[in-house]
Amino acid sequence: MMRLSSPQKLVPTMLAEYGAATRALLSRYLPSHEPRKYLYDLVADYPRRGGRALRPSLCIATARAFGGRLEDALGSAVSIELLHNALLIHDDIADESERRRGKPAMHIQQGLPLAINTGDAMMVLSFRPLFDNRYSLGPNLAMSILEDAERTSIESAEGQALEIGWRRDNVVDLHEADYLLMVLKKTCWLTTIYPSRVGALIGTGGGIDLTPFVRFGYFLGTAFQIQDDVLNLIGDEASYGKELDGDIHEGKRTLMLIRLLERAEPDEKSRIVELLGLPRRARTAEHVRWIRSRMDAHGCIDYARQVASSLVGAAQHEFSLLHSYLPPSRDRQFIEELITWVIERS
Amino acid sequence: MMRLSSPQKLVPTMLAEYGAATRALLSRYLPSHEPRKYLYDLVADYPRRGGRALRPSLCIATARAFGGRLEDALGSAVSIELLHNALLIHDDIADESERRRGKPAMHIQQGLPLAINTGDAMMVLSFRPLFDNRYSLGPNLAMSILEDAERTSIESAEGQALEIGWRRDNVVDLHEADYLLMVLKKTCWLTTIYPSRVGALIGTGGGIDLTPFVRFGYFLGTAFQIQDDVLNLIGDEASYGKELDGDIHEGKRTLMLIRLLERAEPDEKSRIVELLGLPRRARTAEHVRWIRSRMDAHGCIDYARQVASSLVGAAQHEFSLLHSYLPPSRDRQFIEELITWVIERS
Repeated sequence: MMRLSSPQKLVPTMLAEYGAATRALLSRYLPSHEPRKYLYDLVADYPRRGGRALRPSLCIATARAFGGRLEDALGSAVSIELLHNALLIHDDIADESERRRGKPAMHIQQGLPLAINTGDAMMVLSFRPLFDNRYSLGPNLAMSILEDAERTSIESAEGQALEIGWRRDNVVDLHEADYLLMVLKKTCWLTTIYPSRVGALIGTGGGIDLTPFVRFGYFLGTAFQIQDDVLNLIGDEASYGKELDGDIHEGKRTLMLIRLLERAEPDEKSRIVELLGLPRRARTAEHVRWIRSRMDAHGCIDYARQVASSLVGAAQHEFSLLHSYLPPSRDRQFIEELITWVIERS
Repeated sequence: MMRLSSPQKLVPTMLAEYGAATRALLSRYLPSHEPRKYLYDLVADYPRRGGRALRPSLCIATARAFGGRLEDALGSAVSIELLHNALLIHDDIADESERRRGKPAMHIQQGLPLAINTGDAMMVLSFRPLFDNRYSLGPNLAMSILEDAERTSIESAEGQALEIGWRRDNVVDLHEADYLLMVLKKTCWLTTIYPSRVGALIGTGGGIDLTPFVRFGYFLGTAFQIQDDVLNLIGDEASYGKELDGDIHEGKRTLMLIRLLERAEPDEKSRIVELLGLPRRARTAEHVRWIRSRMDAHGCIDYARQVASSLVGAAQHEFSLLHSYLPPSRDRQFIEELITWVIERS
C-alpha cells in the first residue's frame, strides 16, 4: 500500500540525527597530519560539504530495528559514508560534473591528478572503521562486513563501467532491463542494499539471511535513482546542488532517455542518436532543450515516475516481509517512511 | 660491502619463476563474467602486459627465507601485484603518461572515465586474496596483513599527493630530504617495505618485529626509484617501455631535478623554474633537452647514482642484520642479489 499522505517528519529528523552522529565519528577517522594541503584537507572536503547521510542512517536504523546498538553500527556507517564520498569524487570526473553540493567539484578545484588520488585515499580510509569492527563485533562479523563492503565496491564499479561505457560508445540499443541492471549495480548496492545488510548483520549478530535485503534495496534504491534523475530535469538548481538538465548534457542513460529512445519516431530517434554521439562540448544548450522537449512530448518523465511509484510499492512489500516480526520502533518507522520519502523529496 | 661483481643470474631466474606463479594465481582472481568489454577485459590488461614481478617475488622470497611456504605467500603476492597495477593506471593518468609496458596507457586506449573506474575495481579486487588468507593463515595473521595493505595504500596516496602537488604548484624549494620522504611513501612502501613485511609475517607466523623492514625497504626502494629515474634519462626506450626524458617533460621532481635546482646558478635556476612552470603541453622538446643538458653540466645523474650506491650499501647492512640468523637458501641469496640488481638493471 502506498502511503503518500503520511507526514514523514520523522525522515528529515532522523537523517539529521544519525547524520550528525556519523559525521562526529567520521571526523575522527580523517587523518590530521601532513600532507594536509595536497591530501587530508581534500579528503575532508566532500564530507564537510554536508549531504543527506541517507546511507549511514539506513545502516544505523536497520541495525537498531533488528535489536542492535547505535554504537555498534556507527563505524560501519562511517565507512559507508567515506566510500560514498570517494566514489563521488571519481564519478564527478567521469561525468565531467562541475559542481557538487553547491560548490565546485574536486577536480575543478584541485585538478584531476589530486582529485583521483584523494578518491583513492578515501576508498582506502573507508576500510579502517571496518577493521576496527573486530573489537566491538568480533572477528567473524567484522570479516563478513568487510566482504560485503568488497562486494559492494565491485558492484559499484561494474555499474559505473556499464554507464560510462554506454556513453563512451554512444550505445542506444538499450532497454529498461539494461537500465535496471546498471542501477542495481551502480546505485542500489551502495545506497540501500549494503547499508541494510550491514545493519541487519549487526542487529542480529550475523544470524540472518541477507538475500531478501537485495530485493528490498533494489526496489528502494532504483526508486531513489529514478527520482534523482527526475529531479535533474525538474528540480530547483539551488537545492539540487548540481547543474539542471546536466544528465542530458552528459548523455547519461536515464530511464527517461531510454524510454525516449524506445518511443521516438524513426527520424526523431536518428536526431537524438546523432546529438548523443556528439562530443560533450559540442552538445549545446539548444540540443539539450530539444531532447528535453521530446521527453515531455512522449511523457517520459511521467512514465519514469510511474515506474518509481511501482518500485516503492514493491519495496513496501519487501519491508513488511522483513520487518513484520520486529517490535515497533522509531527506527522501523523511519525505514518505512523513508520508502515513500525517496520519491517525494525535492 | 658492495658486491657489484656478482653474476646475479639468480635474480632474473627467480623473478621469472615467482612471477609465473603469481600470474597463474592472479588470473584466477580476475572475474571472467560481464561486464567484460567495459571492465574485466580492462582489469586483465595491465597484468597481462607483463612486468618484472619484483614486488610479488620479494614477498614470496622473504616468506620462504623466513621458513614459510610458497603457497602461503602466493595470495598476498597476487594482492600486491593487483594493487600495483591499479595504482599504475591512476599514476599514468596523473602523469599524463602515454605508454605503459610498450603499449598505449589505459586512459589513452579506453578513455579517462573507464581507466579511473578500472583502477578502482582493481584496488578492490586486490583485497580478495587477503580475505582468503584467513583460510590458510588464520584470522589474526590475515587481519595483520590486511592492516599492512591499508597502511601501504595510504602511504602510497600520501607520496602521490606530494609528488603531484609539487608539480601542480610548481614547488621548487625542495631538498633531498623532501625527495626521500616522498619516495619512502610513494615507492618504498608498496615496492619493498610491504612485500618484505608481509613475507616475514607469513614466514614467521606473525612472530617478528616488522620495524627493521621499514629501514631495509626504504634503502632498497629508494635506490630502486633513483635508478628508475636515471633510466628515464639514459635508458633504451624499447626496453624501458615509456617515453625517454618523459620525467623532465612531466616536471617530475626527481633527485636529479632537485639536485639541479640546488646547484644551478641564479639565472640558470630562474630559467629552469620558468620552464617547469609552463603547462605541460607548452614545454617543448627543446626545453626538455636544455634542462637535461644542465643536469649533465652539474653532474646530477652521477650524483644520483652515488646516492643510489650508498643506499644499496645501507640496504646490504640491514639485510645482514635481518637475515644473518637464517639458514642459507636460494631465496635468501635472491634477496641479497636483488639489492645490487636494483641499481645495475637497465
